[in-house]
Amino acid sequence: MNLLSPLPDARGAEAVDTLLTRSAIRIERIVSRGQASPPGFWYDQEEGEWVLLLAGAARLRFADETEPRLLVPGDWLDIAPRRRHRVDWTDPATPTVWLAVFYRSP
Amino acid sequence: MNLLSPLPDARGAEAVDTLLTRSAIRIERIVSRGQASPPGFWYDQEEGEWVLLLAGAARLRFADETEPRLLVPGDWLDIAPRRRHRVDWTDPATPTVWLAVFYRSP
Repeated sequence: MNLLSPLPDARGAEAVDTLLTRSAIRIERIVSRGQASPPGFWYDQEEGEWVLLLAGAARLRFADETEPRLLVPGDWLDIAPRRRHRVDWTDPATPTVWLAVFYRSP
Repeated sequence: MNLLSPLPDARGAEAVDTLLTRSAIRIERIVSRGQASPPGFWYDQEEGEWVLLLAGAARLRFADETEPRLLVPGDWLDIAPRRRHRVDWTDPATPTVWLAVFYRSP
């Protein structure tokens, strides 16, 4: 199975595919095409999330930082449980492909 | 932090970097440059391993299959605990970059 082809058409809405679900973890591929979090919305998750950008470009923002972070292919970061964050922007011109590994953090 | 650049020079030996360690999971980047598992060697792991090829090319073989699987960028697979496997080949001409997510499977 391949993460990068074929890619779903995400122009209408983000496409989320769950690749693995186990008790401890869940792995998702998310394809965006210009979508962003709604104004004022912040993710506030019980799980930790390790995220890798595979294609495209995005700006991810943490509530505890003043500036968003620009992510390009190969960039990764770990989002601790309850660390509030949002997606300010994804590139509307090309698919943005995320790999997200959600994990329980005791 | 970026997984794809800079890449370590793996011509002498595989380069393994641990990106995240939590109780439930461990995420590693592995860079190969022509290395393979030793003849007759099989991995036999207690943990599950979800693996994604990010760059290069490899042939991964399961003990319960007759033919190795050719992996190209974007290919991923889940290796169940105790499923014996080995790396038959990685491309000697270019770095092969693996993302490996090891997880405990009850």
